[in-house]
Amino acid sequence: MAAADGMQVYPSFHWPVRVYYEDTDAGGVVYHSNYLKFMERARTERIRSVGFELDELVRDHGILFVVRSMAIDFKKPAHFNESLSVSADFKDLRPASIVFHQVVTRGGSEILAEAEVKVASVNASTFRPMGVPECLLERLTAAPKAVGLG
Amino acid sequence: MAAADGMQVYPSFHWPVRVYYEDTDAGGVVYHSNYLKFMERARTERIRSVGFELDELVRDHGILFVVRSMAIDFKKPAHFNESLSVSADFKDLRPASIVFHQVVTRGGSEILAEAEVKVASVNASTFRPMGVPECLLERLTAAPKAVGLG
Amino acid sequence: MAAADGMQVYPSFHWPVRVYYEDTDAGGVVYHSNYLKFMERARTERIRSVGFELDELVRDHGILFVVRSMAIDFKKPAHFNESLSVSADFKDLRPASIVFHQVVTRGGSEILAEAEVKVASVNASTFRPMGVPECLLERLTAAPKAVGLG
Amino acid sequence: MAAADGMQVYPSFHWPVRVYYEDTDAGGVVYHSNYLKFMERARTERIRSVGFELDELVRDHGILFVVRSMAIDFKKPAHFNESLSVSADFKDLRPASIVFHQVVTRGGSEILAEAEVKVASVNASTFRPMGVPECLLERLTAAPKAVGLG
Repeated sequence: MAAADGMQVYPSFHWPVRVYYEDTDAGGVVYHSNYLKFMERARTERIRSVGFELDELVRDHGILFVVRSMAIDFKKPAHFNESLSVSADFKDLRPASIVFHQVVTRGGSEILAEAEVKVASVNASTFRPMGVPECLLERLTAAPKAVGLG
Repeated sequence: MAAADGMQVYPSFHWPVRVYYEDTDAGGVVYHSNYLKFMERARTERIRSVGFELDELVRDHGILFVVRSMAIDFKKPAHFNESLSVSADFKDLRPASIVFHQVVTRGGSEILAEAEVKVASVNASTFRPMGVPECLLERLTAAPKAVGLG
Repeated sequence: MAAADGMQVYPSFHWPVRVYYEDTDAGGVVYHSNYLKFMERARTERIRSVGFELDELVRDHGILFVVRSMAIDFKKPAHFNESLSVSADFKDLRPASIVFHQVVTRGGSEILAEAEVKVASVNASTFRPMGVPECLLERLTAAPKAVGLG
Repeated sequence: MAAADGMQVYPSFHWPVRVYYEDTDAGGVVYHSNYLKFMERARTERIRSVGFELDELVRDHGILFVVRSMAIDFKKPAHFNESLSVSADFKDLRPASIVFHQVVTRGGSEILAEAEVKVASVNASTFRPMGVPECLLERLTAAPKAVGLG
């Protein structure tokens, strides 16, 4: 869709996640560390959506992405069998790393968890920092293709 | 041991964790979200070490502890079969929640991951905030008993 | 499609599963117990595909499905980023339980894992056996709707 | 203890497992696939108890142990915070593989899960079958050292 000033406005990237028993705990809700799995799935799919496969980046370029740090708020519990949606938006570029802003939502707008995740680009053998590939950066910082629950 | 001014100085609480295949990923290292599991084990054992059982707190007092937020740095990778140690020190008290400072170390001093974890005390049925039991707080803020790898 | 004798022949039910880092281990392949998660996702989706939601069965009818036993062969390893497909076919009815035959495949026909899974229908509070609801059985034993990668 | 005929009779190998939130699901009990993790921990510790480290077997001998098949009965549910015990007894030798008999118990004698697990010895790079090292076999088939909850 076109905004008033002619700028393209794109819907954000979202990846659908269904809550299975494997994701829950005896408190009856999604176990907190599993939101990190959901968020990594969304980052992986976000990167795939702009044309890159993580296994090819390792095999062909020796580049591995590792989570360096994250700050996460667990706002509301998710329950078994619910349909969630996870975003993975480019937020910032740091030396040899990318910062993603990610939100887990239910029903389109209810925020259950929100995080900033710093992902470093490292050499797959030595785990030393490597520059993030330019072409990946260009596509990630461009408008996302809407997929999933979008 | 006794410090110069007569104050008791206690070694910190540590909980030993062995890295099994279940904890690792295809990058050859511990999968990032599993540090959150290690840290929760250490918090659970820290609370047990001062005389409280989490299942009794739910059953007898309707109190559930849930992770509200955390900031975590993944500094160095841990590998299959390594012996790690996880601390769980009381850092701060907030309304209806406790902030823990937690460090995952290898070989006694090498820091692999470090986090601040805010754990809220909630009603086990309604998930509404409840005050942290006074007696638990008193014991957590007192010097820890050294256990595990300490 | 119609078979020669006029009987309806339906494609089998399949549920797509993408392999993420969370699913792999330091051996570079999917960690063996995660195939059980993949299989449960497929059973859950199979049951949903015939019109039943597991959370509603607990809430409205007090029925919980639990895995009672399974025999599983791990034939070939799956790797990070691969697209797999998981079937969940009704095989047999036992007192208060259903036996599923499940296969994890890659590329449509290469079998990676195969299992027989006996799932018991129990009272969600007491964990005592309960009869499998008739209407669920009828629909499960009828031809599956093709979904997923089918 | 000494048996009547002078043969040494050893208590079986057991490995203690504490149930944390990470192990449970919304049914309030240990999620079924997590028993496979518990059993692998016990096998790893059993092998360690006779003097072998799995990471050294990969690094120094290129040998990886992978689960080839298993038959498992889930008899009774385990709950959050319970102390369990997991055995890992040598049962049988097959070409390039070992069959373990494993039992998860509570309170010393109550059996919660029981399995036969066939573990293959494979080349860590090619995943092709390799003979199980003789010295490992000898020690595994000898009487176990009692450790853990024994």
